[in-house]
Amino acid sequence: MDSRTSHAHTSHAHTHRPGVRSAAGSAGPPAAFDAVVVGGGVIGLVTAWRAAGRGLRTAVVDPSPGGGAAQVAAGMLAAVTELHHGEEALLDLNLTSAARYPRFADELAEAAGTGIGYRACGTLSVALDADDRAQLRELHLLQERCGLDVQWLTGRECRKLEPMLAPGVRGGLRVDGDHQTDPRLLTAALLTACERAGVVFHRGWAREVTVRAGRATGVVLTDGTALAAGQSVLAGGCRSGEPAGLPPEVAVPVRPVKGQVLRLRMPDARPPFLSRTVRAVVRGGHVYLVPRLSGELVIGATSEERGLDTTVTAGGVYELLRDAHELVPGLTELPLTETRAGLRPATPDNAPLLGPTALPGLHLATGHHRNGVLLAPVTGEALAQALVTGELPDYARPFSAQRFAGGRGVAA
Amino acid sequence: MDSRTSHAHTSHAHTHRPGVRSAAGSAGPPAAFDAVVVGGGVIGLVTAWRAAGRGLRTAVVDPSPGGGAAQVAAGMLAAVTELHHGEEALLDLNLTSAARYPRFADELAEAAGTGIGYRACGTLSVALDADDRAQLRELHLLQERCGLDVQWLTGRECRKLEPMLAPGVRGGLRVDGDHQTDPRLLTAALLTACERAGVVFHRGWAREVTVRAGRATGVVLTDGTALAAGQSVLAGGCRSGEPAGLPPEVAVPVRPVKGQVLRLRMPDARPPFLSRTVRAVVRGGHVYLVPRLSGELVIGATSEERGLDTTVTAGGVYELLRDAHELVPGLTELPLTETRAGLRPATPDNAPLLGPTALPGLHLATGHHRNGVLLAPVTGEALAQALVTGELPDYARPFSAQRFAGGRGVAA
Repeated sequence: MDSRTSHAHTSHAHTHRPGVRSAAGSAGPPAAFDAVVVGGGVIGLVTAWRAAGRGLRTAVVDPSPGGGAAQVAAGMLAAVTELHHGEEALLDLNLTSAARYPRFADELAEAAGTGIGYRACGTLSVALDADDRAQLRELHLLQERCGLDVQWLTGRECRKLEPMLAPGVRGGLRVDGDHQTDPRLLTAALLTACERAGVVFHRGWAREVTVRAGRATGVVLTDGTALAAGQSVLAGGCRSGEPAGLPPEVAVPVRPVKGQVLRLRMPDARPPFLSRTVRAVVRGGHVYLVPRLSGELVIGATSEERGLDTTVTAGGVYELLRDAHELVPGLTELPLTETRAGLRPATPDNAPLLGPTALPGLHLATGHHRNGVLLAPVTGEALAQALVTGELPDYARPFSAQRFAGGRGVAA
Repeated sequence: MDSRTSHAHTSHAHTHRPGVRSAAGSAGPPAAFDAVVVGGGVIGLVTAWRAAGRGLRTAVVDPSPGGGAAQVAAGMLAAVTELHHGEEALLDLNLTSAARYPRFADELAEAAGTGIGYRACGTLSVALDADDRAQLRELHLLQERCGLDVQWLTGRECRKLEPMLAPGVRGGLRVDGDHQTDPRLLTAALLTACERAGVVFHRGWAREVTVRAGRATGVVLTDGTALAAGQSVLAGGCRSGEPAGLPPEVAVPVRPVKGQVLRLRMPDARPPFLSRTVRAVVRGGHVYLVPRLSGELVIGATSEERGLDTTVTAGGVYELLRDAHELVPGLTELPLTETRAGLRPATPDNAPLLGPTALPGLHLATGHHRNGVLLAPVTGEALAQALVTGELPDYARPFSAQRFAGGRGVAA
């Protein structure tokens, strides 16, 4: 990563004395940055890139920018196939972001000079037994009620689309609008785009949010470096709530949900091993196979509540291989090239926390749970707008970072 | 490895002209080495170490000494539990080598200054269903006929010894004489011991065995370097037959049998997760779990005939985890730290090829199949004796490298 990211800007915080106002645009010494973003994963980077694009002097704080959950994630853009009862509001946000993806991919590729592996391949979600089929039928009804474009296929029709599917597949949903991107390429492109847009990277972690006169004034890093900023954004995934100094009215209810993911290599053959994302519920657990044009096949994911643990376990790998094997028996011959675990930042209602908090000058961009890659376009856009105007765009308002401060969520 | 192995000795071959005899001990220029060993795995290294210990000027040729199958192998010393019908002759050799292990371990540790992880922990071989039990009973009968010290245990007795075993275990064989060593430590110690004994390492691969006047006179490396040697030993595992120049009467019938192996990490707890090697036949496939004092738990192994392929596959890892999970369900929580494949050098009768061939000056030390680590002590000793005296010790004679030249094997 060293070659991609700038060296730490050695600004030290201006001295603020009690009683001297220091907020951006007010009296007192000027802030070194207009915006400091804590967290250099996909969400932090897209926020910084878009903020810089609006003319804000922007810094990113991260011990290892470009790391985090995006290095593990499969990159499904699964607004429709990930629909859950009670998450219809989130569906709207997901669809909004999915619709922006082609243009976002082009714009980012142009800014960075490298692509992000966006692939409009569609998704096939299948059922392996009668229970699975009943569950999938129910999802189909919900999708239809939401006006989504989904087609029910017989098992034979599924296998015609994807001949590697197990003979036991009993039916499935064809979702031609759920695509994929490569989160590692996305992260790399965002790093370059940030650099080119003048974003300054500080290697380190934010120990504390500094507050003066009832306003966030920047952050202090674990090595003691103080960064003054007109506005601060906590975008550190499941660790977003860690910095000290947050007043009680700022709630950051994110918890890590561990996901173990495998990477296999498909043969370079015609027809391809798989031509679209294939997913299923197997014995109650979700499994998905995301085939990239590069030949990489990503298989995910476990869902485990184990705190900050990112250990790859025998049981996690076993369950993924067992379920994937049941879905696509032919994958036993494929090389297993990587096993890894990441942490999804989950909130009580599974929706992200976006924009201004109860503390002036402090924003959140976290809690994206399974949808961080999908929601990157709208998150960058919404946060940049909030940083510039103080207000989220309409589509993002149901996901206000303040909705849990009073103990209520967005869930329908 | 660079820090462990000497740099290539830049000897170039003496020029031999047709008609000029050049064999060791005869007229013509003296050979640069008394013995050149092609292959720097466990078998090549132990041969070189013992040869140097007998006063022979010895070289090892290997592109990466210390690599090979020993980096993958679990290190079971399983003379008794690996017994197969028709391999009673091999049993004797295996028992001979197992009996030498404690002293070999001490001697090598003293020569190298580092231990080899020899652990006299015993083995428990269990049955999970009625078929397995019948098979294990048959093995027990064979073991008793061979006069081996084996005890039949009920399922409950097995679980009393190893409480992590699955409730479904139906019985097992307690073999207190089948121990383990750590092949990576063994290899490291052999490298150091070779260096200290003056063995010269040539980085490269042997392209050709040179033959003059009906006698092997050394090898030529792929970079063209020629090494003259009074005697040559092919000890390159499943690739031992690759060098050109072998006359038709020298048969090297070794083929690679791929084994995929996993490494997990056990918790540092009392009582230990497992206290001895545990193995079973599960659905016809062998699975074993070798617990080291370091906390490493090695799970092996697939057995696949796929040429020189060392790819780790989704199916190989899946089967090992599935079978191990059936045997010891609690391992699902353990970190999976490594997946790797190696190649066993198998012969038509599963026994090694040792000592002089039909070509004077050329020896074999290969074909150890599943027993390379176990047979290291006797192989080093037998080859050194053959290099010095021209004859194998009695216990090694049934495994003469010449037994396949006439199309017959050692099998009882």
